[in-house]
Amino acid sequence: MYERILIANRGEIALRVIRACRELGIGTVAVYSEADRGAHYLDLADEAYCIGPAKAADSYLKIASIISAAEVGNVQAIHPGYGFLAENAHFNEVCRSCKIDFIGPSPEAMAQLGDKNSARSIARAAGVPVVPGSDGLINSEEEALRFAHEVGFPVLIKAVAGGGGKGMRVASNDLALKSSLQQAQAEAEAAFGNGAVYLEKYVQHPRHVEVQVLADGHGNAVHLWERDCSVQRRHQKLIEESPSTSVSAETRAEMGEAAKRLILQAGYQNAATVEFIVDSEGKYYFIEVNARIQVEHPVTEMVTGIDLIKAQIAIASGEPLPFTQDDIKSSGHAIECRINAEDPARNFQPSPGRIERLIVPGGFGVRFDSHAHSGYVVPPYYDSMIGKLIVHQPTREEAIACMLRALAELRVDGIKTVAPLHQEILSHSAFAEGRIDTTFVERTFMAG
Amino acid sequence: MYERILIANRGEIALRVIRACRELGIGTVAVYSEADRGAHYLDLADEAYCIGPAKAADSYLKIASIISAAEVGNVQAIHPGYGFLAENAHFNEVCRSCKIDFIGPSPEAMAQLGDKNSARSIARAAGVPVVPGSDGLINSEEEALRFAHEVGFPVLIKAVAGGGGKGMRVASNDLALKSSLQQAQAEAEAAFGNGAVYLEKYVQHPRHVEVQVLADGHGNAVHLWERDCSVQRRHQKLIEESPSTSVSAETRAEMGEAAKRLILQAGYQNAATVEFIVDSEGKYYFIEVNARIQVEHPVTEMVTGIDLIKAQIAIASGEPLPFTQDDIKSSGHAIECRINAEDPARNFQPSPGRIERLIVPGGFGVRFDSHAHSGYVVPPYYDSMIGKLIVHQPTREEAIACMLRALAELRVDGIKTVAPLHQEILSHSAFAEGRIDTTFVERTFMAG
Repeated sequence: MYERILIANRGEIALRVIRACRELGIGTVAVYSEADRGAHYLDLADEAYCIGPAKAADSYLKIASIISAAEVGNVQAIHPGYGFLAENAHFNEVCRSCKIDFIGPSPEAMAQLGDKNSARSIARAAGVPVVPGSDGLINSEEEALRFAHEVGFPVLIKAVAGGGGKGMRVASNDLALKSSLQQAQAEAEAAFGNGAVYLEKYVQHPRHVEVQVLADGHGNAVHLWERDCSVQRRHQKLIEESPSTSVSAETRAEMGEAAKRLILQAGYQNAATVEFIVDSEGKYYFIEVNARIQVEHPVTEMVTGIDLIKAQIAIASGEPLPFTQDDIKSSGHAIECRINAEDPARNFQPSPGRIERLIVPGGFGVRFDSHAHSGYVVPPYYDSMIGKLIVHQPTREEAIACMLRALAELRVDGIKTVAPLHQEILSHSAFAEGRIDTTFVERTFMAG
Repeated sequence: MYERILIANRGEIALRVIRACRELGIGTVAVYSEADRGAHYLDLADEAYCIGPAKAADSYLKIASIISAAEVGNVQAIHPGYGFLAENAHFNEVCRSCKIDFIGPSPEAMAQLGDKNSARSIARAAGVPVVPGSDGLINSEEEALRFAHEVGFPVLIKAVAGGGGKGMRVASNDLALKSSLQQAQAEAEAAFGNGAVYLEKYVQHPRHVEVQVLADGHGNAVHLWERDCSVQRRHQKLIEESPSTSVSAETRAEMGEAAKRLILQAGYQNAATVEFIVDSEGKYYFIEVNARIQVEHPVTEMVTGIDLIKAQIAIASGEPLPFTQDDIKSSGHAIECRINAEDPARNFQPSPGRIERLIVPGGFGVRFDSHAHSGYVVPPYYDSMIGKLIVHQPTREEAIACMLRALAELRVDGIKTVAPLHQEILSHSAFAEGRIDTTFVERTFMAG
């Protein structure tokens, strides 16, 4: 086991990793930008080094500074958290060339899964369903129509060079497909100087269901069941839960096995999340792999009782998984609400500033993961998430009731948070009945 | 199920009951003394009534005021918490005569178990071992010697009218017994005007192990395994854990069954704790029943996953237990540290006052039950406990490591707490090895 680990991150995930290391008796080296100087969680690390100015590009994304801190701090491994450099295969390679373990997959596995086409190929090779796509450019109207008739309408036209929705169109019949194809090509040509497009089946009312996997360096892999993250706002997850209400017991088990096969097929080690969309008939399609720990990992920890950060560290240090698939039970129901410093009344503008008083909910089945506290100043430079409120109860109904009472207890004086939106969502009958998809929040609660 | 409950208590246990009621959809009526006016937890109740001045005798112990609030608040039941009126059979009876359910046992069961001799008789009738005693007055040196030879030295001489250690002596041989008997009788005569004494076997290096029981109104009872509360200072529990390191798997199961038999024998309904002492050979003896919820109940909640306050409310409202003994699994290891506002450097003097800043530990396996927050003023009038830090981990070793990191995170600026003593205890090799008895803290950490 390692003697010393550097945490190449900030905020709640930095604190989360420090906590796990302290419990494992592993020394910790924290890094911080000038904006995070003096943060309470830095006191809990054994050492802390400033790695640059507030701007992430000058600090948390600055590979040379982080590697310097790792060398000064004499660490054997780096935990990247999520975001920043967590899925940067180049950083991962630099760590290897400096003989520092990267707590995550190899650079090769990361790069392979980071490329959408190669990830889809791996999924297919592992026998995992992917969203039907043209798998190559569409060169003519005839090709487009043939594909659409094969997979069924609606279909999605996407620019190869795409991004930000440009060159993207949904078409529901032949006529629309023909005109949308032209529009998309023209738009892509104008935006990216490349008019090439491809087609995918468009999944309506999609639910986002993802499977947590752990794989060690000895050929063992387990899945830790799924998380449903369909409650999103502008593709940002707001509420995550496990089990999912979107899939049957059979589908859950099947998706777990599919995710595990995919990860083994990729030669991947450490923690991974295999993301799927599930259509309204309960059919699931692979989307992508997140090659890191995720924000919503506590949901899985609550239902399985397994500490995922400790598992990541043990795997990276070469230990075999201490459990087999049969040992992984999912018990009760867990829900997580992300507490973002945003103002729901002002179109979710970030609401940085000083937290005059923070009152943390507690009691049976309640967990609060946060680096914030009374007097903490939320800096304006980073992600607006200041904490994660997680509950665990025997049933989903009880979990919703528990979350509502915990949200009622939470007080964050001085800044605005999304807590009121969470209360609205959790009180809504559609949520109670599990009638949620990724468009639910915007359809139901957002103006315009 | 009830529509409305009054909570006849304050502080963390009042908040604990409010939390359970909110989750169950039950309305709450809180009461408060003038010293507790404005406390944050009162905002979480549906109504709150002032019942008198700070002094407990004028408010939290004032039966008439509490009953008035219950009538004004139109409640169907009263939860007494622990302390104050929780084991007052008269209050229990007054509730009944006012047709308000008391969330606890009947006044008869409470009174019967509150009397030490009648509790011992019930235990014997249920086949539960009690500390061997003379069960009656010792009238002569010969009687005393006969008893001592029968049960074996050392023996404890206790004044019938005793209290505060007066008229109490330990004797380890014939000679000491003869002289101690005279001294004890003389001392009791002087102190209480009653020289009568009786004898008990003196259990050396006693461990305090208690069993949580739930019994409903339909003849069903279950035990929820044990808690070890041997880490005490001046008979005040400081740290509680489950499972106990003092008993074997066989003894655990046996004590659980014994506790259940005793509670059924007493015709007791609701939550109860059956307290035992365990000697250094692992033999257990019944001491007393606590006819209420206990401070340390979260330890049991963590290992069993059962919400004991919700169970109390369901039982009182007439529901049958929703589980059988086979359903009650004890999983992992839980530890609770009581966070008392006391100054370890000044002989544990109470340390009331304003908490300038409270930083609450969080993360995997950590629970903090507290009514305190940044800016909360700890009043000088009541119990010094301001919170309970509870951890749950797969093993005892991991639970100790988790508690140590959680204690390192806890910050209570402005007042003193016993957290530093907890850190010393949890870091001590004797604690790690489970070599603890009720004298451990005083022998090891206390001056003089």
